[in-house]
Amino acid sequence: MAEGPDRAPPGKWWGWGDPDRRIELSSSAIATLRDELGPTEPSGLVDLDEVVLPEPRALPESLTGAVNRGSVLTTHEQRLRRATGRSYLDLVRLRAGRLESAPDAVVLPGSAEQIAAVLAACEREGIAVVPFGGGTSVVGGVDPIAGRHCAVISLDPRRFRSVEVDRASMTATLGAGLRGPEAEAALGAEGLTLGHFPQSFEYATIGGFAATRSAGQASSGYGRFDDLVTSLRMVSPAGALATHVTPHSAAGPSLRQLVVGSEGVLGVITDVTVRIRGAPEARRYEGWVAGDFEAGMGSVRELAQAGLAPDVIRISDEAETRVSLALAGSGGARRALLEGYLRLRRRSAGCLMICGWEGGGESVERRRALASRILRSGGAVPLGSGPGRAWRRSRYEGPYLRDELLDLGYMVETLETAHAWSRLGDLYGAVGAAIERALNAAGTPGIVLCHISHAYADGASLYFTVIAPGRRGREVEHWRGIKAAASEAIVAAGGTITHHHAVGRDHAPYMTGEVGALGVEALRALKGRLDPAGIMNPGKLIA
Amino acid sequence: MAEGPDRAPPGKWWGWGDPDRRIELSSSAIATLRDELGPTEPSGLVDLDEVVLPEPRALPESLTGAVNRGSVLTTHEQRLRRATGRSYLDLVRLRAGRLESAPDAVVLPGSAEQIAAVLAACEREGIAVVPFGGGTSVVGGVDPIAGRHCAVISLDPRRFRSVEVDRASMTATLGAGLRGPEAEAALGAEGLTLGHFPQSFEYATIGGFAATRSAGQASSGYGRFDDLVTSLRMVSPAGALATHVTPHSAAGPSLRQLVVGSEGVLGVITDVTVRIRGAPEARRYEGWVAGDFEAGMGSVRELAQAGLAPDVIRISDEAETRVSLALAGSGGARRALLEGYLRLRRRSAGCLMICGWEGGGESVERRRALASRILRSGGAVPLGSGPGRAWRRSRYEGPYLRDELLDLGYMVETLETAHAWSRLGDLYGAVGAAIERALNAAGTPGIVLCHISHAYADGASLYFTVIAPGRRGREVEHWRGIKAAASEAIVAAGGTITHHHAVGRDHAPYMTGEVGALGVEALRALKGRLDPAGIMNPGKLIA
Repeated sequence: MAEGPDRAPPGKWWGWGDPDRRIELSSSAIATLRDELGPTEPSGLVDLDEVVLPEPRALPESLTGAVNRGSVLTTHEQRLRRATGRSYLDLVRLRAGRLESAPDAVVLPGSAEQIAAVLAACEREGIAVVPFGGGTSVVGGVDPIAGRHCAVISLDPRRFRSVEVDRASMTATLGAGLRGPEAEAALGAEGLTLGHFPQSFEYATIGGFAATRSAGQASSGYGRFDDLVTSLRMVSPAGALATHVTPHSAAGPSLRQLVVGSEGVLGVITDVTVRIRGAPEARRYEGWVAGDFEAGMGSVRELAQAGLAPDVIRISDEAETRVSLALAGSGGARRALLEGYLRLRRRSAGCLMICGWEGGGESVERRRALASRILRSGGAVPLGSGPGRAWRRSRYEGPYLRDELLDLGYMVETLETAHAWSRLGDLYGAVGAAIERALNAAGTPGIVLCHISHAYADGASLYFTVIAPGRRGREVEHWRGIKAAASEAIVAAGGTITHHHAVGRDHAPYMTGEVGALGVEALRALKGRLDPAGIMNPGKLIA
Repeated sequence: MAEGPDRAPPGKWWGWGDPDRRIELSSSAIATLRDELGPTEPSGLVDLDEVVLPEPRALPESLTGAVNRGSVLTTHEQRLRRATGRSYLDLVRLRAGRLESAPDAVVLPGSAEQIAAVLAACEREGIAVVPFGGGTSVVGGVDPIAGRHCAVISLDPRRFRSVEVDRASMTATLGAGLRGPEAEAALGAEGLTLGHFPQSFEYATIGGFAATRSAGQASSGYGRFDDLVTSLRMVSPAGALATHVTPHSAAGPSLRQLVVGSEGVLGVITDVTVRIRGAPEARRYEGWVAGDFEAGMGSVRELAQAGLAPDVIRISDEAETRVSLALAGSGGARRALLEGYLRLRRRSAGCLMICGWEGGGESVERRRALASRILRSGGAVPLGSGPGRAWRRSRYEGPYLRDELLDLGYMVETLETAHAWSRLGDLYGAVGAAIERALNAAGTPGIVLCHISHAYADGASLYFTVIAPGRRGREVEHWRGIKAAASEAIVAAGGTITHHHAVGRDHAPYMTGEVGALGVEALRALKGRLDPAGIMNPGKLIA
């Protein structure tokens, strides 16, 4: 994964991941989609050189001189690769080759002092700064918006790559620019793990995890990233901020919890100290099937409230279970999942659960036995480790599959929320219904899938996937209509506008619903002090 | 525990707790203290009526009219009882009958609207507002400081007493004015518990727990109060702030974590939603003895990092072990502790540990068996449940015992800090040495005791107790010299200035060391927005 500092981010410029890796859909999967959703028109793709970007504005020497030679990138590809995140609309715009905005340059500072100098120059010259880590935002979090400023740069902290392990305290201080696999590899070499595996793991960075309150697939066990952070350092236009290194403090409001989730609007995160663990000696991933979503949710709730939630715990609703199996096709890993499920044929429908335990072998077996008791008493039936292993092998495949579906002409996007257990069923119903109404209103009936991705004692997250025929040339209004309907339903039902995708540009209009008018004003006051000129990531979070 | 709204807070006006309850020291305990610390002069106590308070300033009708009749208290005792917290210096001043400041009145609003009206009147008239719950602060958190304002009131939220349980989500929304036992009794009636038992439990309130990031004796198991809070409501001079009810959200910096720990400087907390649990079916508390403090700390670290820390886990250093046993005297409960210890006589010295497990019977036994393995492998020896039960029975006795020691003429005070495990030994040594140097410099050699009160995977808290002969008439400079030496040593060693006593007035000078100059400025900006006139709890937190 090592990459030179002047290299563009890896992966397809127009989609997700390794261009040589495809997750092909079987012909039966394609047929199923066509049966359910009607015909679609395969979508094209322009060449990299053909993508139209706005002309770059020249940057003043006070800015370019703040970093070393070779640390200001301005080629077409370098700018293009920091011009978007990885939402459905981002991919649509990339494939069509038309981007309304792009950073005027990409700056790669090598030290906190250089970041301070860059921010000072930008403040003086009126240039907006977008911190850009892995660029995996699906909420417009890295959109190069100049706002009222005369230019915009992307600031890529990829040179912040330090790894410093405190074994006694089981913490590590990690450079913000490290990608997920780089951090895991460095820790793994010492028999350690961070245990943070979001679907964006292959590309997202430590700084991005912190800035967006990332949650990983194993966060029910290892903790969300905001739980893992014990302290961090940030460079703001107004100066440097370092939170205290302590397991806990009662010294006032938590500045750590202000910097975590700040999405680049307060400053640039440079280093993050996180709790780490010994690499697991044992792993056990299993499939289970619940009779229906309500019963399965009940079991997940019981597990979480008993302190026995597996480290990975997911349950798909009936629709997601059905469609996942239909799309699984003939690939070895996913086939195993299918077969494990088919052994249970006597049960005609149901909801697939994935339960994963990691840690010491004895602990895995003990916790698994205790959890299995609860699952069985809730009526769930075990499918064995085949589906678990299959899920684990394919855990990062979602975005690859999305590229295939986009090729075929489908719209595919996800969104997530969370609520207390007592309100979760209503939220699930309201959001699903709102999305379906919006799909029908657009004349594109589609499929709405949902799973619980994270379970807590007091509630859980709901992760929705929407698949429908794309509307060629009208993708933006198509998706925006659906997203608005879903977001309004979430706010009306009292759910949070985001459980782990963060706010970015797309959720900013809902922040008043989320934290109230005074809450937004409080955040603005904070930003006003740390970023008085408003150069940091304009248009995001509290736009 | 029910108390009428116009009653003064319960307990001794000049000390801690029920005036009819004394924790008498045995003659051998008194002799031990005299041997170690030299003779002292027993201290006197004035009558309640003799305490000199500043004359109350008359309050404008716009303020008194904002609440119901009978909700503005102005008697000598009502003002006196909200004039201090419960630090050593507070008790010294009360006993001597001289208070430089007292609230001009105590206001008891009955609704969020009344609080808003009171704050609006105070803002208009230039009157400072000190939120006053249980009044158990030991850091000057409720000192009635008018600052630049013309008067000061205490705002007591005791009428906020609602209890609303959400069983499915295992949360409860509790009125800020409920005292610890009232909240536990309401939950206990439904077979539930909050599990929050700080030493101040008998008097402290739900609002106070949230405002100060309280940690309880069982917080290693149940979580600190800031971990238990899922959402809260606060009335600020600038308006109402309600954080989202959700198990987790990625929507930006955490406003919840801004209100938690805000110590009344941003507004008045009115309701707090907290995670609750089923009342424990079983409890097992045990004594263990470690060979020395370093070995015992190692075992505690291993337990915490294995995820096997008991729900209560404490280890006293050699000095605290020795002095606790000497002071235990002939009382039944504490005697049991002593006897359990004596059975181990073959070990001439050592460090007493208390381990407590609560929950389902099976879970208690399982976790206890796993933890016992780690304790034994670290060389600790079990003392059985006698010392555990004795500790549990006497868990709230510390402040009662302090009153006895003050009667005898001793200075007694505590302070706490925390750090990562890799730095904890150095912090322990540095703080202990600094306190001893200061005691010697004052000509009052004393005893410095320490225990680990809370253990985390990445570090732990250190809780120091200082006992020395008091300096009659010079108590303030005496203690302040010691406290300053300890605080400076904490800051120099990189520890947090407070693990759970909060900042208040006493730690405010160290906030720059804690969060940096820019961190303090960020908090000031926040306060500036929520409390533009600066009426809320002047002189505290970010004075």
